[in-house]
Amino acid sequence: MDMQQQVSVITLGIADQARSRRFYTDGFGWTPVFENEEIIFFQMNGFVLGLFSKPALETDMNRQGLATPGAFALAQNVASAEEVDSVMDQLEKAGGRVLRAPDEPPHGGYRGYIADPDDHAWEIAWNDAWPIDEHGHVTFGAG
Amino acid sequence: MDMQQQVSVITLGIADQARSRRFYTDGFGWTPVFENEEIIFFQMNGFVLGLFSKPALETDMNRQGLATPGAFALAQNVASAEEVDSVMDQLEKAGGRVLRAPDEPPHGGYRGYIADPDDHAWEIAWNDAWPIDEHGHVTFGAG
Repeated sequence: MDMQQQVSVITLGIADQARSRRFYTDGFGWTPVFENEEIIFFQMNGFVLGLFSKPALETDMNRQGLATPGAFALAQNVASAEEVDSVMDQLEKAGGRVLRAPDEPPHGGYRGYIADPDDHAWEIAWNDAWPIDEHGHVTFGAG
Repeated sequence: MDMQQQVSVITLGIADQARSRRFYTDGFGWTPVFENEEIIFFQMNGFVLGLFSKPALETDMNRQGLATPGAFALAQNVASAEEVDSVMDQLEKAGGRVLRAPDEPPHGGYRGYIADPDDHAWEIAWNDAWPIDEHGHVTFGAG
């Protein structure tokens, strides 16, 4: 089989499932596809997002001491600058902490950053050079 | 617009672009869709993966001190247990560090963990309950 340019799962380590569930379901408006006491899965655009108890993730990964904030960010691109503002606002109400209020980056568009309850960073962005289809699949576009 | 269950970009903070480029192109066999001095983008299965200078990510996110290893993991599901072994082997040769040699987790399947050169964790897994289509799009399956 050819090697696919593919990520199957993004797993975020969390401390408090109810707190995280609120951020992702009330803040983003998402519906889990599966949940039990230690994990919540969301079916995303071509892959699965998991919210997994951090100690369980450490055990599975075979190392301890996973730190926050980690050196990564997830981004959700939305359809307009106004939607950046409204999504940031919903996420803040659902327990997020604004890291950067939305503004215009040097490369164009409009974006802000907000931390989820475990301090994982989300960028909420409007970037009209990157098309998003009806299934949420995002394609790189030279801006 | 309805809120999509969608992540547009995963951005990993990196320290040495040539070192990371080797891991992702030689190890995974992926081809960048764009690169300049501070970022490399890969078109993935429905979203974009970015490898971004960690200081530049910190500036963009408006906070300093991003730590590694972070409390997250990315996973690539492959087609067989044998492919888990061969992908782990290729990634190790391209500069990865094995965190967990492949074995069978309690929930079934077969998986190992390997850190990229910046200590970001990748799980390489075989999980035949989760279908992967020809575009690399992965669907949750109760296993």
